[in-house]
Amino acid sequence: MGFGEDNLRGVILALLSSGFIGASFIIKKKGLRRAAVSSGVRAGVGGYTYLLEPLWWVGMITMIVGEAANFIAYAFAPAVLVTPLGALSIIVSAVLAHFILKERLHKLGILGCVMCIAGSVIIVIHAPMELPITSVQEIWNMAMQPAFLLYVGSVIVLVFILSIHFAPRCGHTNVLVFTGICSLMGSLSVMSVKALGTSLKLTFEGKNQLIFPETWFFMLVVVTCVIIQMNYLNKALDTFNTAIVSPIYYVMFTTLTILASVIMFKDWEGQSGGMIISEICGFVVVLSGTILLQVTKDFERSTSFRGNHTPGSPSLSARLYNGNGELAKYCDEEVPPEEICLRIQESY
Amino acid sequence: MGFGEDNLRGVILALLSSGFIGASFIIKKKGLRRAAVSSGVRAGVGGYTYLLEPLWWVGMITMIVGEAANFIAYAFAPAVLVTPLGALSIIVSAVLAHFILKERLHKLGILGCVMCIAGSVIIVIHAPMELPITSVQEIWNMAMQPAFLLYVGSVIVLVFILSIHFAPRCGHTNVLVFTGICSLMGSLSVMSVKALGTSLKLTFEGKNQLIFPETWFFMLVVVTCVIIQMNYLNKALDTFNTAIVSPIYYVMFTTLTILASVIMFKDWEGQSGGMIISEICGFVVVLSGTILLQVTKDFERSTSFRGNHTPGSPSLSARLYNGNGELAKYCDEEVPPEEICLRIQESY
Repeated sequence: MGFGEDNLRGVILALLSSGFIGASFIIKKKGLRRAAVSSGVRAGVGGYTYLLEPLWWVGMITMIVGEAANFIAYAFAPAVLVTPLGALSIIVSAVLAHFILKERLHKLGILGCVMCIAGSVIIVIHAPMELPITSVQEIWNMAMQPAFLLYVGSVIVLVFILSIHFAPRCGHTNVLVFTGICSLMGSLSVMSVKALGTSLKLTFEGKNQLIFPETWFFMLVVVTCVIIQMNYLNKALDTFNTAIVSPIYYVMFTTLTILASVIMFKDWEGQSGGMIISEICGFVVVLSGTILLQVTKDFERSTSFRGNHTPGSPSLSARLYNGNGELAKYCDEEVPPEEICLRIQESY
Repeated sequence: MGFGEDNLRGVILALLSSGFIGASFIIKKKGLRRAAVSSGVRAGVGGYTYLLEPLWWVGMITMIVGEAANFIAYAFAPAVLVTPLGALSIIVSAVLAHFILKERLHKLGILGCVMCIAGSVIIVIHAPMELPITSVQEIWNMAMQPAFLLYVGSVIVLVFILSIHFAPRCGHTNVLVFTGICSLMGSLSVMSVKALGTSLKLTFEGKNQLIFPETWFFMLVVVTCVIIQMNYLNKALDTFNTAIVSPIYYVMFTTLTILASVIMFKDWEGQSGGMIISEICGFVVVLSGTILLQVTKDFERSTSFRGNHTPGSPSLSARLYNGNGELAKYCDEEVPPEEICLRIQESY
């Protein structure tokens, strides 16, 4: 298995990116907490004091650096390699949250981390080498293959059906509608980001690609896809719990991106069956690890919320009665609703 | 990656073995239930009526067939390949329990199954080929290598320390003592089973190995090790919960067996670094899947009761108060707790 220099660069950039993005969540959250302590108003209820908190801005910059590293990684290594490594940002943020924010990691969450790492190692070991690309026209020709055009066509049709027919009817009850739209668009975003990144890499290497209209077309596609993707991701996160949206989005987005990359860049051509199967298994393992980590984060939320609950914020208290009208459980302290649900489930 | 005919035979036998052993648990359990229904006394409280139940005997025979297949598998394929596939018996029994015994599988348990399968596939793809063995003396020479003798010596010393010093002091409070002894002995059992199996295979092929004292020595070692191992496994299961013992035992036993096999049979010689790392990752994934499956089996014990909600069973009604003590939401009817949670989330 040959592991080229470009793949190595791509992997290092992807790992750095995951490190920065993972850390940025923690820094921003610490910033939000500081802002809440100093003003008494939480961002969740409309406060904007966090904009005055330098730590929040440090987090924002860390995230931008991370996204930039991710963008450059796509210029060097295949999407089949870079995309699944994105899961490591979830590990970084879970581990940092454990140590810095004292949000205790559930034991099964640690297992999820171990799996993400094992799966990532398998993916990296079996990653395909990319054919060297020398001009943006080459990428353009790849994008114009009938198979990839069919993929793009299907994505556009599906996004239309989802956003016009399903979104108004069940977008607010079925988590798959908004998440589906942004995963479908996301796979096109990554392909165009990869095309644009490669063009810019070639430009920096002295082969100016900015003179070709294809480069500008890809830039337009990047902007369009990313805007649509972000718009629906925000809708999904506004409507549903992050702990539900994140794993579903991660699974769909990564799967579709790999599918798109395999069609467009023919990543799997020239690889043995065993290597392709190993990659898929590695990918399944990373997905499972991510799901496990996200699901158990929700288990643990009850205990971490209890710790840093700022006084004065809105919450509910509940009296729970059993079938005979007797008081079964009483939550007197002000606790967030998730916590009440957890206690209901526990007490039941 | 060459995948020899012997490895293929070994994998098929190991899979059959896992299927039989996994099914045997379910058949035996069904037999025990029938016996309990017909006599009113459960095996757990001292009843022996299950011995009159044919189904229990079918389960017992299924298990013996499975163990035999496992024994033969070791004669064909390296322990590095056969041992981790044993985890699949846990999947088989979990899936059959879901469908036949209606013991609902937790969603995370399904994730555990997926991981065990993905990890097993990775292990099978990267398994080393064994050097052909032509006589029991060859195995004897492998067992007499200084590195392996050092391993055997360490195991014996550790088992002595654990059973004489630790077992009386903390054997009943620390799960690692009994489980440790049977895992250590287990790794020697597998090595001697493999030696004996290979000798018998050669004998059946016409090269009689029964004339050599080494064959009989290995047989003696098999019997001794298996008796000690079973004795301490029973002690561990008697003292601690199966859900705790199983994953710990599986992890330690498999790890030590692979270590022993790598030392004695030099399984990893001639394999590339990438293949060895992939194997280890596959193994870690199978272990994680097994742990997840076992841990969540315990979760489900409480929630599965909730699933078949019989009418008249207790449910909850809730009064929810906001931060100021005002009544925010009132669920008067008896609704299942999930419904209350949904309403809380809606009202919030």
